[in-house]
Amino acid sequence: MRELGPLLAPRSVAVIGASGTLDSLPGRPVRNLLAAGTGIEVFPVNPRRNGIGGLRCYPDVAELPVAPDVALILTPAAAVPAAVEAAGRRGTGAAVVISAGFAETGEDGARRQRELADTARAHGMLLLGPNTIGLHDYRRGLPLSFVWTGRTPERTTGAVAVVTQSGSGMASLCDRLLDHDLPLGHGVATGNEADVSVTDLIEHFAEQDDVRVVVTVFEQIRDGERFLAACRRLHALGKPLVALKLGRTASGSSVARSHTGALAGSYPVLRAVLRQHGVLEVDDLEDIGPTVTAALAGRFPAGRRFAVVTSSGGAAVIAADRADELGMELPPFSPAARERIRPYLPDLAAVHNPLDLTAQAMRHRFALADVLAVAQDGDDVDAVLVGTPSGAGDYGLALADRLAEVAAAGDKPVLSFILGGEEGAPQRRRQRDGGLPVFRSPGEAVATLERLSRFRRARPRNLPEPAGAAAHDLPSGAPSEHATLSWLQRCGIATVEQRLARTAEEAIQHAGALDRPVALKISSPDIAHKTEIGGVALDLRDADGVRAAFDAVTGAAARAMPSARLDGVTVSPMVDPVLELIVGVHRDPDLGPVLALGLGGTWTEILHDVALRAVPLDPADVPEMIDELRAAAVLRGARGRPPVDPAALTTLVVTVSRIAWDCGDALTGLDLNPVAITADGAPVVLDALLQLTATGAVSPVVGS
Amino acid sequence: MRELGPLLAPRSVAVIGASGTLDSLPGRPVRNLLAAGTGIEVFPVNPRRNGIGGLRCYPDVAELPVAPDVALILTPAAAVPAAVEAAGRRGTGAAVVISAGFAETGEDGARRQRELADTARAHGMLLLGPNTIGLHDYRRGLPLSFVWTGRTPERTTGAVAVVTQSGSGMASLCDRLLDHDLPLGHGVATGNEADVSVTDLIEHFAEQDDVRVVVTVFEQIRDGERFLAACRRLHALGKPLVALKLGRTASGSSVARSHTGALAGSYPVLRAVLRQHGVLEVDDLEDIGPTVTAALAGRFPAGRRFAVVTSSGGAAVIAADRADELGMELPPFSPAARERIRPYLPDLAAVHNPLDLTAQAMRHRFALADVLAVAQDGDDVDAVLVGTPSGAGDYGLALADRLAEVAAAGDKPVLSFILGGEEGAPQRRRQRDGGLPVFRSPGEAVATLERLSRFRRARPRNLPEPAGAAAHDLPSGAPSEHATLSWLQRCGIATVEQRLARTAEEAIQHAGALDRPVALKISSPDIAHKTEIGGVALDLRDADGVRAAFDAVTGAAARAMPSARLDGVTVSPMVDPVLELIVGVHRDPDLGPVLALGLGGTWTEILHDVALRAVPLDPADVPEMIDELRAAAVLRGARGRPPVDPAALTTLVVTVSRIAWDCGDALTGLDLNPVAITADGAPVVLDALLQLTATGAVSPVVGS
Repeated sequence: MRELGPLLAPRSVAVIGASGTLDSLPGRPVRNLLAAGTGIEVFPVNPRRNGIGGLRCYPDVAELPVAPDVALILTPAAAVPAAVEAAGRRGTGAAVVISAGFAETGEDGARRQRELADTARAHGMLLLGPNTIGLHDYRRGLPLSFVWTGRTPERTTGAVAVVTQSGSGMASLCDRLLDHDLPLGHGVATGNEADVSVTDLIEHFAEQDDVRVVVTVFEQIRDGERFLAACRRLHALGKPLVALKLGRTASGSSVARSHTGALAGSYPVLRAVLRQHGVLEVDDLEDIGPTVTAALAGRFPAGRRFAVVTSSGGAAVIAADRADELGMELPPFSPAARERIRPYLPDLAAVHNPLDLTAQAMRHRFALADVLAVAQDGDDVDAVLVGTPSGAGDYGLALADRLAEVAAAGDKPVLSFILGGEEGAPQRRRQRDGGLPVFRSPGEAVATLERLSRFRRARPRNLPEPAGAAAHDLPSGAPSEHATLSWLQRCGIATVEQRLARTAEEAIQHAGALDRPVALKISSPDIAHKTEIGGVALDLRDADGVRAAFDAVTGAAARAMPSARLDGVTVSPMVDPVLELIVGVHRDPDLGPVLALGLGGTWTEILHDVALRAVPLDPADVPEMIDELRAAAVLRGARGRPPVDPAALTTLVVTVSRIAWDCGDALTGLDLNPVAITADGAPVVLDALLQLTATGAVSPVVGS
Repeated sequence: MRELGPLLAPRSVAVIGASGTLDSLPGRPVRNLLAAGTGIEVFPVNPRRNGIGGLRCYPDVAELPVAPDVALILTPAAAVPAAVEAAGRRGTGAAVVISAGFAETGEDGARRQRELADTARAHGMLLLGPNTIGLHDYRRGLPLSFVWTGRTPERTTGAVAVVTQSGSGMASLCDRLLDHDLPLGHGVATGNEADVSVTDLIEHFAEQDDVRVVVTVFEQIRDGERFLAACRRLHALGKPLVALKLGRTASGSSVARSHTGALAGSYPVLRAVLRQHGVLEVDDLEDIGPTVTAALAGRFPAGRRFAVVTSSGGAAVIAADRADELGMELPPFSPAARERIRPYLPDLAAVHNPLDLTAQAMRHRFALADVLAVAQDGDDVDAVLVGTPSGAGDYGLALADRLAEVAAAGDKPVLSFILGGEEGAPQRRRQRDGGLPVFRSPGEAVATLERLSRFRRARPRNLPEPAGAAAHDLPSGAPSEHATLSWLQRCGIATVEQRLARTAEEAIQHAGALDRPVALKISSPDIAHKTEIGGVALDLRDADGVRAAFDAVTGAAARAMPSARLDGVTVSPMVDPVLELIVGVHRDPDLGPVLALGLGGTWTEILHDVALRAVPLDPADVPEMIDELRAAAVLRGARGRPPVDPAALTTLVVTVSRIAWDCGDALTGLDLNPVAITADGAPVVLDALLQLTATGAVSPVVGS
């Protein structure tokens, strides 16, 4: 973990390239610092001025009386390298390069950016940016940027830290969070991340006792494995990371490229891996404030079950719709709870969940609070949503106090929504002051609750030390399909029997021994797309058929690739699967090895129906992965299809996961495709491709 | 269309069951009317009081000096029938029954509710409710409910009408819309809809010149075909209907049942049919305000292409992500446009769409407005989003004015988003006053734009007069598969050849004539699930096979259903489809006949991958339906599959649609399943089920 003190708690700042025109962009950092009145020392640096804003202006950073903790650099791009060098030579703690014109402009800019980082590193100086707006310490009221609005939070605990790549994104996001009255501490924008990254900052904030929730908005995580380690650390500390990924789509990634130089990764992989690590990913900026608000309350649902108590029937319907759509559950109240609730309802009404107390029930002055107390009691649910009517004057304030008291006395998360508009503002504030997170609508409350529930549903990930490739006797070079299947068999994974035959007679012998219809496939480390070249013959039932097939496939191979090394043909029993799966592991360039499980065949190519996890997996991940698939019903048994044997599939998946984890960098990819599910539900691997990271060796793309 | 004057523009109101305790629920309607000071005549009716709130209180509605336009009824459920009768007898224009305890409680309540409607009808009196909070005329400041907050809109054009079923939903929604400064006119809640329905009100508001946008929130549309006619009328008048459906899911529908007695319909059908009619459906209450705001600007994008001009790179990425996710397009700027924009950008920056002007570009004071002028010019895009920085003091206000001017001078929709928080409020108001719809985030702006684009993308629906079942020689009774296929053939739809054979010899003859492998299927109007009972034999290649199969299937049928009428067996050529589709029409209980097109087979059962339209379709609907399918790529040709011949498929679908439309009520359902797509891309119907609405006749559920 890097020491970020000079950057985050500076006592002095040099502003290199400061302008005497305080309202211009390069003038504003000094203007903001003066206006903030922070008491830190400010040194404008500009050879053309003697003074700026009443401060002495220095011609060169070399002439500063002290080595500044931070140097803000605002010069045109061409002058930045010299400024960074000068700052480093003067012993500056951290350079914050606001100037743009580096990696976001292309290859040449990327090169110049690397040189900046080298320069800074050579002087032991941190470098934030380039192409960043800088950073703000909202708690302290200290701006190191040109976009400071002067707003600081009412609550000064600094419990919320914000780390983004986009500069303007950081400033506007923080202002939105201040609208939510959130206790902001630091807001830091890393820009192009030549040096200090989002991960460095997250690691730092995780260890700050004051910080309880970290927010991040990013385009590309460049140090993925360390980022995931930071996520595990935050999760273990009970501090949620609320994340928004920019550039989820083709168009968005393309824009991100020219914004901060970010490279597109696989968004489905990122999404799954974030969730696996208990990161609370949001879909939109507007979700961040509500999610942080709920997270600060410090209680996280243990599961997906919740109750809704409200005085609006329409709100109850909306909550029920969102629950179904987000996979949350609304279990019925227990008989004991129903008995306690019944007196609050009109005679003919049943006690459902969600519970609509109706306007009539509101005759019992604090009915909502009394019923909340019942709903949060016991083990029926993991959380409660309470919806109050707005515009209720003093009564509304008194009810707010009662609701907050009741919620505080329990141990489950309680989220509130207040229907109506701005006339509900006093109630909203009163509930919030009482510790209740308050949302603008039932839909927002349910969506936030679902997001919160991911925190505890994510299992802690304790990663064993990788055992190394030798532990699994990983082959080398570019193994053929036959060699790969044999290797998998030795690893304890059930594969289709494959016997290698060098002659037609041998093939006939093998077929006879198998005593079933067989398939012949050409075996060669050099031949891809066996089916396409005629190198596969199926459903051979007698010696003549086998002989003819042997000649046919070997002949086809010789014609298609005369120079290919032919090991012979493999002879395997025909398999009639009820279903085909794919199980594969690939190294994601940003996040490391990721396992995919899905349905095989054309439909998966079109539908992309896969579930993803970073390795190593937990056995409990496998049933959850199956449930994520759109074809989950098929795997569990529908319309006459026997189910997949869950234990056997779990064993296979965990084994593949363990192999990938242990082999680490030596393994680029392992695809088991297809994994046939036979009539008894057992998985059998029919074909596999192993891609090793070795000098020059590229495995053929296998086809069958 | 019903005359709703007494309800919506009353000059006098009786409050039956008014309480002297003005702050209690039954006291509030009088209290609200007094506070509103509307000048209309108010007559409290309560035998136990002489006066309420300074007004003379009458013991009975019969004693009122005039026949009131409206009677608000607040008595307990048991007293409601008498109150409705009394109001009717006194010549009341409209009864508004606030009391609950009717259809939402079950069968007995539903019966009592029908009696209320009968009573009202007998007196020529309108009835709103029961179980409604009532209605508000926000423009006039006239409350007929117990939940009035006293808020009225700044802008009093009454351009927005709100019609809901849920009562509390109406009031809180309207308050939220007032927060958005929307010019609300009426807000009406229909409750259980014993008489006056959402459709009645929508029909009425469509014809009001002042009303430009109608908002509706509903649980069940009970008069679907009239509702759709109202949707067509609104669309033709250029007035968007913004709709939110409550109870989209199993849980939500269940709650809605006990809320207003609403019955669950098919949500996917409703969603598709609303879109087909240009209705702007939202997913959440919170989307309504932004959508109405944009709709009031009066410009609707002609298509899906738009440009984004902003000074925030992060916002540009977010906009691009949402565009991809919502199927909107960000085309590149034309070369001419690029030339005009280039001077505003830093030297190294390219002119992309979305366009990030960056902070540097903001040195040109009104760069955003100048670039907006270029972006909205020409035919490259259908709409423009502009994103401004917030907190910019006087400059921000001046920029707001410039942006509004530029947008007004063009003819495309321009939507604005302002980044940051409440410090942007003055700018937001200034832009809004200038006529720009302003949103809270780029994501919200893109989603709203997509929703707006549905208005003009929906084709006007001009429905021909149905020609009647005789025009298609619709069979009667419960036709067998064979008879149905023959009928379809006569309708001009390509079906697989099917020859009926009564004996094995006939079957052999037919097979010989077809000179291809054949399938034999038992033909009987009484046998469902032919495959399951062994009534189907496939791939028969010679006379012996046909003979044996004939005996086998007829024997199996006789054993399985000894009393079934056997017409014989059908002999058809084996078909090897590259793909199978389903084309079906069913009468939705709320919305009338709806056509479904999708992939056949197990995957569709699991994935529910169908596209839906109300009949009659437009030929142009068919390619759009194909694009909606997740398997669209398969139909258009992927991985060696020849495409479906789009013209042939369109012809088939339009023919089925026309048959269903013309046959009207006589036809309950028509399923073509499977429709085989052969190697040349042509659709051939292999099997079909026709369900007719006839006394007692129920067709077998066909299986093959």
